[in-house]
Amino acid sequence: MNKPAKTKYGIHPLLESRWSPRFFSEKKIEKEKLQRIFEAAQWSPSCSNEQPWRFIAGEKGSATFEKIFNGLTEGNKKWAGLAPLLVISMARKNFIASNRENFHFLYDTGQSAAHLTFQATHEGLFVHQMAGFHADMMRESFNIPDEFTVASAIAIGYPGNPDMLDEDEKERAMAERKRRDLNETVFTGSFGVIWE
Amino acid sequence: MNKPAKTKYGIHPLLESRWSPRFFSEKKIEKEKLQRIFEAAQWSPSCSNEQPWRFIAGEKGSATFEKIFNGLTEGNKKWAGLAPLLVISMARKNFIASNRENFHFLYDTGQSAAHLTFQATHEGLFVHQMAGFHADMMRESFNIPDEFTVASAIAIGYPGNPDMLDEDEKERAMAERKRRDLNETVFTGSFGVIWE
Repeated sequence: MNKPAKTKYGIHPLLESRWSPRFFSEKKIEKEKLQRIFEAAQWSPSCSNEQPWRFIAGEKGSATFEKIFNGLTEGNKKWAGLAPLLVISMARKNFIASNRENFHFLYDTGQSAAHLTFQATHEGLFVHQMAGFHADMMRESFNIPDEFTVASAIAIGYPGNPDMLDEDEKERAMAERKRRDLNETVFTGSFGVIWE
Repeated sequence: MNKPAKTKYGIHPLLESRWSPRFFSEKKIEKEKLQRIFEAAQWSPSCSNEQPWRFIAGEKGSATFEKIFNGLTEGNKKWAGLAPLLVISMARKNFIASNRENFHFLYDTGQSAAHLTFQATHEGLFVHQMAGFHADMMRESFNIPDEFTVASAIAIGYPGNPDMLDEDEKERAMAERKRRDLNETVFTGSFGVIWE
């Protein structure tokens, strides 16, 4: 199932075809693909090359997978268990060398997740990032140090069949992808003044 | 000048060739490329599809360019004026509909900047994101509402000749790109336990 972005100007095919599905095939992800996916995340840019991102990854059937799944909100539990891989991303709040606050720790970690997603899409996989998780449960399950914030949960896998979902979830999964007009996003001269 | 990432497993060519230069050619960026670049940013995923990112863009010679340049730190002023386009990214702190805090506003804006960068790289351009700017100056220059945080400054352009830089800057520009080992970034079972 494809849901390409309805663009006005045309964007790179990997960005156009990327979307966040709620159904995944049971097919396991090849180890070498996972290695490339995480290596892609690693080569993301960051403030002072701090690389504030860390990831915990668990394949279906592992204790790690189970723990990440258990830490998700009920809404995400409805579909995320279908994915062959669950991941959490974490972000270091302070710079390692100076221990000063790193204002960009979440910005950079989001950017790293985008790199992970580009590579995964290139490998024929789909990625669904989640904001709905219990950070305290994740912290306890994985002994995450206080210096790190849990930034997101991420499901990765090959696309499955939407019929595996219940009706409500299926409807959400099939919904059209929408974005604000570019006029409301890119400005020049002053905030709110159309650039396009 | 190319500085491809020295990868262990191999990543997508656009991610491998992406890096953040300190020298740009004077060549203007074609309007249709800029439209695709910002449209790519727009199709980034976000929590509840909130799309918290906004951008202000100014071409060299415009008042907007001048204002962004003036708001940069001294270190970035040494090279960023060479770029044909300067941009600032902003992130909305609260959800528009509920006015509740959006924990993912900077994470999502970083991700959007990665999409912008991916498209720009595809268009033959280079992107250098900056953390060094005076947010208060940007806010005043562009009447940025309090609901938004200034997230980053971004220089975009075609690659230039490193000889246009002074010796110090040239040395920084030529420095090898480095990343932490993947063993220190991706874990399983518990924080710090090697996944690879």
